[in-house]
Amino acid sequence: MDRFKNIDAIFNPMAIAVIGASRSPMKWGHIILANIIVGGYKGKIYPINPGETEIIGLKVYPHIGSTPGKVDLVMIATPASIVPRVMEECVAKHVGAVVIISGGFSETGTQGAQLEQEVVRIARRGEVLVVGPNTMGVFSAQASLCALMPTVRPKEGHIAFVSQSGNLGTQMLRYGQDRGVGFAKFVSSGNEGDLHCEDYVEYFAKDQKTKVLLAYIEGIDDGRRFLEITREISARKPIVVLKAGRTRSGARAAKSHCGALAGSSQIYDAVFKQAGIIKASTTEEMFDLGRAFVYLPLLRGKRVGILTWGGGWGVVTADACEDAGLEVPDLPGESIQELDKILPPYWCRGNPVDLVGVLDRARHLKCLEILARCEKVDGMIVLGTITGTSFFDSVIAGISEVSAEKGERIKKELEKVDKTFANRINELMARFKKPIIPVTMMPEGSAKTLGILTFPTPERAVKVLAKLFEYSRHSDRQ
Amino acid sequence: MDRFKNIDAIFNPMAIAVIGASRSPMKWGHIILANIIVGGYKGKIYPINPGETEIIGLKVYPHIGSTPGKVDLVMIATPASIVPRVMEECVAKHVGAVVIISGGFSETGTQGAQLEQEVVRIARRGEVLVVGPNTMGVFSAQASLCALMPTVRPKEGHIAFVSQSGNLGTQMLRYGQDRGVGFAKFVSSGNEGDLHCEDYVEYFAKDQKTKVLLAYIEGIDDGRRFLEITREISARKPIVVLKAGRTRSGARAAKSHCGALAGSSQIYDAVFKQAGIIKASTTEEMFDLGRAFVYLPLLRGKRVGILTWGGGWGVVTADACEDAGLEVPDLPGESIQELDKILPPYWCRGNPVDLVGVLDRARHLKCLEILARCEKVDGMIVLGTITGTSFFDSVIAGISEVSAEKGERIKKELEKVDKTFANRINELMARFKKPIIPVTMMPEGSAKTLGILTFPTPERAVKVLAKLFEYSRHSDRQ
Repeated sequence: MDRFKNIDAIFNPMAIAVIGASRSPMKWGHIILANIIVGGYKGKIYPINPGETEIIGLKVYPHIGSTPGKVDLVMIATPASIVPRVMEECVAKHVGAVVIISGGFSETGTQGAQLEQEVVRIARRGEVLVVGPNTMGVFSAQASLCALMPTVRPKEGHIAFVSQSGNLGTQMLRYGQDRGVGFAKFVSSGNEGDLHCEDYVEYFAKDQKTKVLLAYIEGIDDGRRFLEITREISARKPIVVLKAGRTRSGARAAKSHCGALAGSSQIYDAVFKQAGIIKASTTEEMFDLGRAFVYLPLLRGKRVGILTWGGGWGVVTADACEDAGLEVPDLPGESIQELDKILPPYWCRGNPVDLVGVLDRARHLKCLEILARCEKVDGMIVLGTITGTSFFDSVIAGISEVSAEKGERIKKELEKVDKTFANRINELMARFKKPIIPVTMMPEGSAKTLGILTFPTPERAVKVLAKLFEYSRHSDRQ
Repeated sequence: MDRFKNIDAIFNPMAIAVIGASRSPMKWGHIILANIIVGGYKGKIYPINPGETEIIGLKVYPHIGSTPGKVDLVMIATPASIVPRVMEECVAKHVGAVVIISGGFSETGTQGAQLEQEVVRIARRGEVLVVGPNTMGVFSAQASLCALMPTVRPKEGHIAFVSQSGNLGTQMLRYGQDRGVGFAKFVSSGNEGDLHCEDYVEYFAKDQKTKVLLAYIEGIDDGRRFLEITREISARKPIVVLKAGRTRSGARAAKSHCGALAGSSQIYDAVFKQAGIIKASTTEEMFDLGRAFVYLPLLRGKRVGILTWGGGWGVVTADACEDAGLEVPDLPGESIQELDKILPPYWCRGNPVDLVGVLDRARHLKCLEILARCEKVDGMIVLGTITGTSFFDSVIAGISEVSAEKGERIKKELEKVDKTFANRINELMARFKKPIIPVTMMPEGSAKTLGILTFPTPERAVKVLAKLFEYSRHSDRQ
């Protein structure tokens, strides 16, 4: 069979059935159905339950065989014990794929493992692909499909994400939703009884919309196959992996949680390195990198130019750069001379470029342009200047010598300055092919509307730059 | 003179003058005055400007000598060149202290350094304390005093903070404001021409309201004195330091920014260790630790119990614990037996305690109590269960078999469950003297109203626990 064609049944189905659909709002069979509907799925939806006639306004079918026409994807939320029978019915119906939400399989011990093998055997015999079992579901922006246990509505975007933990994966989607980060596709791979992490990676890599792949991995069954697939992909699209179960405690936790043998950390490190995979060291970093690879050009050398409104932030950022193996080079004479024309005479003439309290942000922009043009600088961090309008709030605090109307006007103008700044940064990145990261200290998501990637702390921005450099070296080599 | 009495003039003044007060909303002399007024300062405020009669509704005095009665604190926002004359007037008026906002002193070179020395000489002769010059101001919750350049309104709290960078310091206040973190006192120490970082630390340590001290440090002039003062204090109150200028690039940046000689990283590390100072490695960690030392009991041993709603989070957290030098111990038989009564038969019987999808949070609470009571556990991380109501959103998504009214009721009930959970965590911490940290994955500040400290990622929670352990060992030794 054409495996990818069937994986399409998961991420771009024309019709979905939900077996175990329920009227009770506290049952997963209700919640998942509601999520599919509220998520905006446009295809046909068939709730399956022999004891009901209508759920959430939809006609209910007694079993999968009684649904009209083709069914591409089946969500199963029944008790584990009846899943073999349900799977037989799905095979008889010639469905494309099933997502087994139900738990009680290999994650619970030997007996569950046998049940899982049986279910997968039936499915494979019938050429039905299986997601899970023990999965929290799938998301596809292309199909407006939120076939998930938790109620999360990811924004459409360019990140594809495979997670060997459903809870961690879906909470990361939520994390993204709260912070304006978009996804193209997501799968909670569950126990991976049939489809494995590397199958999804291979499929996602072919997706036009997907610019970067994220994977949360506890254990890989077939390391050689994983390496082959990812090495080929990583030359074209970055793959960011958070490997969990690296430590003794973590490996023990992984084993008890999904039965996965986590394997030695050294072996994984070697495989990832050979494959050109970017390692994230925290959940947050995985996410930061996802965004960065979507929105930023790569860092082609290790030299960082720092533009800062406050000296202290410059110092902290320079420390972080050196810690991360990046450089904060002296600027060449011609850049210094250009900056001399814009900054007050007592400016430090060094990198970081300290804006020494200059309020006029048109001058900030000019400084940024000089850095972007500079041949000794490969990427930039801009501290405090974007969304820096809070410094001016007192102007519009109401008790100043400024009318409410004029205050509103000033506020709008400051917002316009932010927007101009953001646009200019995007232009400079496109023109010079160098990443520019503004750091705001604002809560994440504050700069969402500016159409630009910002980070709340300089340390996170620096970590991202370091990985943009790492990946550029890998993809250069290819 | 009684130095502390005069430092009181800075943080608890009865009357303040602002020299260089201005009608122009884009001048610092206007913005600072507006910040003091809007910030809610209750004492007398005297704007000083020979060319004005009224600013923001306040009577203006031509010079400091013409103000009626005693003036404790003077804010100076005039050009640097006239500060010596202004300081002479302050001495003549017998003011307690001045805050020199003006830049153009030692941070700009030799000439500026001479001017700074002159100003400090005049002040010291007249027993007037100097904050700065080149400072961004002071905050005192006790006095409702926001004598700051940026418009930030810190919430009242138990953190005192000295920053050798005004910009970094005030943006951290803002960071706290956005995330519901409170402060008792803050000072941007500027060039430290007169009062030094350790003077503020010594003063803040005596403040009843202050439970923890934070310091952003680029350079210390008198290491011996700093060590003496901080060693004595750290036995009673934790001191958290973010040392910047640790690397070659950072040190160079620090030098050009405030003229401070950053000194060798090894020397600082040795001094901090001797002094029992807790080192923060990032700006965010400094903040996390500030909050943690205010709200959490210390971690008296290194054994962490992990309660998790999702297996993956447990694995990641176990990894992070081991990375940070903490342990994730097996649980004793009696705890396992107690948990057996609450969790489904297929639960993992290990630590992390995986709640394997149990929805009923009363059972989560029971599990948490068992961990808190367990003698093999010194502290806990609770993943995903608090503010976990988002999982139930579909129930109230409006298209379910639930009326809008009933939906509202369910939502309120879920919020009540969160609140109960939070209260119970506080009770358990008080009773067992063990820290419990819930991790939410929600944007920071989301759990503000619950009256409990939460972190958005497990990695941050683990780092905090590790430092709570480090400090407990230090304070035990005293």
